Amino acid sequence: MKSNWVRWYMMAIIGFSIGLLGYLLYTFIDTLAHMRYTAIRSALDLRARSSAGAIVLSVLLTVIITSCLVLASSSAVVYVAPEAAASGVPEVMAYLNGCLMRRVFNIRTLFVKFTSCVLAVASGLPVGPEGPMIHLGAILGAGISQGESTTIGCAFPIFPSLRNSKDKRDFITAGVAAGVAVAFGTPIGGLLFAFEEIASFWQRSLGWQIFFSCMCATFALNMFQSAEYAVDNGHFGLFAKSGVIFQVSETGIANHALALLPAVLIGLECGLASVWFCRISQWMAGIRKRYVSPRGKLAVMLEPVVLGAAFVALMVFLPVMWECKPVPHLDVSGKGRNETFTNLELYICDPSGDEGAADTYNEMASLALNTGEDTVKQLLNRNANQVFGYFSMVVFLGVYFVGAACANGMAISSGLFVPMLVIGSLIGRITGLVILDVFMGREGQFAPDSPWAWVNPGVFALIGAGAFMGGVTRLTIALVVIIMEMSSEVHFVLPIMTAIMTAKWLADNLEHHSIYEKALVNRKIPFLSGEGMAHSMKLLETVTVSRVMRPNVQVVRVQERISGLRQLLKRTSHNGFPVVSQPEAGGPAVYVGFITRDHLQVVLRSAFYKLSSFDSSLKAMGEGGGLQAPKLVLDLEITFEELSARYVSERARSLLKMHDEIAMSEPVGGGGGYEGSYEGVSFEGRGSGDHQNFENVMINLRPFVNTSAVAIQSSFSVARMYVLFRSLGLRHLTIVGEGNHVVGIVTRKDLMEDRLEEALRAHRQDIFV
Amino acid sequence: MKSNWVRWYMMAIIGFSIGLLGYLLYTFIDTLAHMRYTAIRSALDLRARSSAGAIVLSVLLTVIITSCLVLASSSAVVYVAPEAAASGVPEVMAYLNGCLMRRVFNIRTLFVKFTSCVLAVASGLPVGPEGPMIHLGAILGAGISQGESTTIGCAFPIFPSLRNSKDKRDFITAGVAAGVAVAFGTPIGGLLFAFEEIASFWQRSLGWQIFFSCMCATFALNMFQSAEYAVDNGHFGLFAKSGVIFQVSETGIANHALALLPAVLIGLECGLASVWFCRISQWMAGIRKRYVSPRGKLAVMLEPVVLGAAFVALMVFLPVMWECKPVPHLDVSGKGRNETFTNLELYICDPSGDEGAADTYNEMASLALNTGEDTVKQLLNRNANQVFGYFSMVVFLGVYFVGAACANGMAISSGLFVPMLVIGSLIGRITGLVILDVFMGREGQFAPDSPWAWVNPGVFALIGAGAFMGGVTRLTIALVVIIMEMSSEVHFVLPIMTAIMTAKWLADNLEHHSIYEKALVNRKIPFLSGEGMAHSMKLLETVTVSRVMRPNVQVVRVQERISGLRQLLKRTSHNGFPVVSQPEAGGPAVYVGFITRDHLQVVLRSAFYKLSSFDSSLKAMGEGGGLQAPKLVLDLEITFEELSARYVSERARSLLKMHDEIAMSEPVGGGGGYEGSYEGVSFEGRGSGDHQNFENVMINLRPFVNTSAVAIQSSFSVARMYVLFRSLGLRHLTIVGEGNHVVGIVTRKDLMEDRLEEALRAHRQDIFV
Repeated sequence: MKSNWVRWYMMAIIGFSIGLLGYLLYTFIDTLAHMRYTAIRSALDLRARSSAGAIVLSVLLTVIITSCLVLASSSAVVYVAPEAAASGVPEVMAYLNGCLMRRVFNIRTLFVKFTSCVLAVASGLPVGPEGPMIHLGAILGAGISQGESTTIGCAFPIFPSLRNSKDKRDFITAGVAAGVAVAFGTPIGGLLFAFEEIASFWQRSLGWQIFFSCMCATFALNMFQSAEYAVDNGHFGLFAKSGVIFQVSETGIANHALALLPAVLIGLECGLASVWFCRISQWMAGIRKRYVSPRGKLAVMLEPVVLGAAFVALMVFLPVMWECKPVPHLDVSGKGRNETFTNLELYICDPSGDEGAADTYNEMASLALNTGEDTVKQLLNRNANQVFGYFSMVVFLGVYFVGAACANGMAISSGLFVPMLVIGSLIGRITGLVILDVFMGREGQFAPDSPWAWVNPGVFALIGAGAFMGGVTRLTIALVVIIMEMSSEVHFVLPIMTAIMTAKWLADNLEHHSIYEKALVNRKIPFLSGEGMAHSMKLLETVTVSRVMRPNVQVVRVQERISGLRQLLKRTSHNGFPVVSQPEAGGPAVYVGFITRDHLQVVLRSAFYKLSSFDSSLKAMGEGGGLQAPKLVLDLEITFEELSARYVSERARSLLKMHDEIAMSEPVGGGGGYEGSYEGVSFEGRGSGDHQNFENVMINLRPFVNTSAVAIQSSFSVARMYVLFRSLGLRHLTIVGEGNHVVGIVTRKDLMEDRLEEALRAHRQDIFV
Repeated sequence: MKSNWVRWYMMAIIGFSIGLLGYLLYTFIDTLAHMRYTAIRSALDLRARSSAGAIVLSVLLTVIITSCLVLASSSAVVYVAPEAAASGVPEVMAYLNGCLMRRVFNIRTLFVKFTSCVLAVASGLPVGPEGPMIHLGAILGAGISQGESTTIGCAFPIFPSLRNSKDKRDFITAGVAAGVAVAFGTPIGGLLFAFEEIASFWQRSLGWQIFFSCMCATFALNMFQSAEYAVDNGHFGLFAKSGVIFQVSETGIANHALALLPAVLIGLECGLASVWFCRISQWMAGIRKRYVSPRGKLAVMLEPVVLGAAFVALMVFLPVMWECKPVPHLDVSGKGRNETFTNLELYICDPSGDEGAADTYNEMASLALNTGEDTVKQLLNRNANQVFGYFSMVVFLGVYFVGAACANGMAISSGLFVPMLVIGSLIGRITGLVILDVFMGREGQFAPDSPWAWVNPGVFALIGAGAFMGGVTRLTIALVVIIMEMSSEVHFVLPIMTAIMTAKWLADNLEHHSIYEKALVNRKIPFLSGEGMAHSMKLLETVTVSRVMRPNVQVVRVQERISGLRQLLKRTSHNGFPVVSQPEAGGPAVYVGFITRDHLQVVLRSAFYKLSSFDSSLKAMGEGGGLQAPKLVLDLEITFEELSARYVSERARSLLKMHDEIAMSEPVGGGGGYEGSYEGVSFEGRGSGDHQNFENVMINLRPFVNTSAVAIQSSFSVARMYVLFRSLGLRHLTIVGEGNHVVGIVTRKDLMEDRLEEALRAHRQDIFV
């Protein structure tokens, strides 16, 4: 019960920290972006002398500012922490799925990610901060709960009882969820994101704790934003500015059955666009791999600078081609309020000098010079359909689409969500404008009370934003909830769902993998998608695991000589070993359980420690020689259950307390990476002579064996085994024969698509030939 | 790929059917309730002659109408289908958890449930239609997907490839989700409800299909409602009336950090109230069991009639004690609209004859004479705080609380959700009124633009509704989403979450089980809550399964004599048997796999069929005698994989096609009930003489054995085994010893709390004594 309270406290701490971090991230980005905008603005204001000169000056200024920001951003990533590159969402997804990569969750990645993300997003590149925010949440969840950092070599355990790999995993999950919650202001969406990505069994109590963490994170973010708002307006604690990010209208428009038809259309468009987005991105990654990476770190660092400078120069220069238009002052809400646009951009148009006369604005500049989020807000606006014409939206879509696809995968910390929202809203709004023009003619608009009010480009922009995200990320339920929470549009949940479903369906049929899965496949990370093999799962029901398992397993006997264990750890890089024992009745050795590499290392170290002290005390007593008896069996007073069960971990720690010189690795394993992420411990280094005496001592491993490790028979079907891996979040599974002797082992790598398809092919050949 | 399309079609069909059924259910209820109301209204309108007379007349009329309706409702349940009683939500939860009960999903239950629910809800009892709607959804999911009914003995398989127990389970899950979606108008909430209750591995593709089903159901419901609306107003297809049920105000009130404090307070109140609600309900169930049930079906049938009549009489009579009040005409929205209450009840007050003068209304009658949903809407209203005073709300709360608690568990088909919403809103609104009075004084109200606008009894009523539901049902995420979707209040998600969390926390600490789990525990249904044992799970890590398993398992050898199998099926009622075989190397028999009772029966029947035809053809050839060789091993040409893998099920069916006289039970098992839901097939009945020859024939069972059934060693920990049961949705698990011989079996019943606690106690004694 007590440990349960500790978990709730920790969830609250993680939530609040992530809320604070998110607030800092967004504030820094806003400040920097505002400074950048002010500089460009002041350059443009020099048009009094010469329009052309002002534009050239502002383009130059933009290029310089952006280059500096991007250079700082990419150099941090390239030279300090390459793991901080890109959004980090694929890494987080892989972790929730059961794969662990190195250095992804350490403190250096945290700092670099934060800095690089602030600089990159503020620079005006077509990137967003949401993806990095999710990754930052995961890092905070890991760091705070474990209270230690191996990178900077410090440890401040707040709650020592939570320092084990199972709890760490739970808190990272909570961190991911809270990261999403902060990134989009959607506590429920955050929880569902974590749930959709997590592979294994989801305990309801854990879900509730994670929900609490999301709530704390959202609350903290709202509080800080409220405090900022209160500086100007008073009313600290009022969540006026915060909460729903993209709520553009308070007027609820009644939904209509016919809205599903354009939703399907937008879904198809966005599905197709998302596939091409991924393809351009992949193609760019290929170019990068072939031409940029081989030229060294400098080239990798400079690439985003060059591309970024080109992109922002285009963004500042393009608006020249558009005329100035008067700002629409439409009172379509029927409420007497004058809901005009606040972010329409003057560019080089003349401000109206006198009161009452309409200001003018530049269409393209209003799209291109704002931050991504403001652009989305303008696209979602429902009150003035003609504020953006076809020409400006199509040109902007083209440039932004290519720019965002190329920016994905550069050596900066940046996310895809804002670009996806921008592109999706553009596609949706263009489609909506076409539909409106067909039905109402140019300049037409349905009144908000009309049953046709839903034929509104702003509504379709929201549907498009969801659909494009659905096509790129292949998220499902979480995405619908995120869109709903972001826009507060419960009314339109049916068309939004329809569009997302259509886009995902089309994208699934055109491209097997989502953009995240593709990133993981490229890096050969054993991600079990649960979707990927769905089509051949029925066929795999008849294939037995003997076709995919690896025979000749390295097993460990229950009583093993120290020299043997040391050899084993040095010779192999496996992450764990099945343990066998000789049955009393005789016959071949049978399967008993599983022992991880980490546990074996801890056991070996404590054995050495114990033997050393024993040995030296014997020497001190003058009996010399030490332990020679080859058959002596060493028993350490700690069991596997004690190692793993959290409530005794204090005792376990004290029992396993080791010699100061030997740094203690994480004692309770499972963590230690997918396979072979640890080197064999080099005992030789520290006076092997001292230990030669012990080489023949046998250790009784039985207490350390995980006897609750499932083993299956070789007659099991592959399909069912896949379910076991996903349901239980396994990394490896021992295969036993009829008499319970170990005959093979299956790891996640053996369940990758190519391996499974090979097994299926072999199975078919055996049947038909 | 093809079978996948079939699944999507089926999901759509199920969704639309449930939408239609929901529309019919609500329309019938509305019509009947309106007729009942009109009758009472007309009796009250006779007050011109005498007020007292009018009240007595209306009370009498109410009692008569209600008694007739409730009598019809309860007689259908008692005499036709007792399974249709109550809400059916516990049964559905148990099914999703992995337990199956008989006759819960058949067509008779469907009709009785529908009829009984319409009558009961329309009668004016404190019950709602949501629970039955969920159950109806599950029945439709089962019935439509399987296309057959054993009850009425017909079969119209639409898609034969979906007729197997795994798909049936998926479609029932979809039915549940769509039922929730229709009941509350919340497609996302429906999906999450199913997800929260489902125990085992949740495939993302299945989740997406279920989401589609929810969407279709909501769409169908909206379309029918839109069609009804179009009859009066035109605009068929406009979802104006439908969608968000409880959206009482279009004005978004900004949330405030301080709102969390009253949310915690309301959470505590509602948590406490919910515990007492369950206790009263349990206490009433005890009385019912002791005094009503023993007196036979008639007493069971009449009990709801008597209680119902008393309740409605009180509801009609109570308003006499309240004065008439003028209807508030507040324009607090600041929008120039006059948002008054439409459902305020005149009772015996005078309507204002002339235009402009204020109408009067009766506070208590406005609460008591409306339907439950209208009462909730009035309580959630934000525009006139003083429309209900303390006295009316407290009295109504008291009467309704006791009434609803007693009504739960009566022999009528009725749900708890509307009562929970009413009670929760009352508690919230009363608390809100207190807070408002403390801060603003009597008659005060904060303007909607004020930063204190959230201090509004209508807002607190919504928070209370969620909190009380949280305390009673212990739902978590699904509930938050349902409340959010129902009310369209994305702004207030933080206080709603806080209140639900607080209420659930308090209720969990005071009462171990939710009201649904209690119903299941009372009926000894082996429901694995995943929450219940959470506190002792850590302790169970050190207990091995040998403490809970049942030794002396009935096993089946791979080659078994027909007589032995028949004896086994007759003697035991187990739902399946571990299969063992003699290893070639000698020694005791080893575990091979598992065979279910259903499969064994099918195998036996087809063996008989094959042998009969063989035998008679031999006889026809004049060779006499038939098969005498005792060692003859019969091989049937079908394997377990073929039985189970859907894509060959047609072939399996044709292979297993049996003698016309032998009705074919469901061939692919797993379904057949938790344990022993089938009787042993009585072969004796139909000319056992003919078959005596075959008694000694041996059948080779190997092809029918499920070799993908997990078996674990007896050294496994109980905690880990519990996870296996829940993750994989198991019903039984074979326990093997070191040499892979079967030593025991564990079923769900062995994992019930009392058994686990016993094991824990025994384990402790062994350690400390």
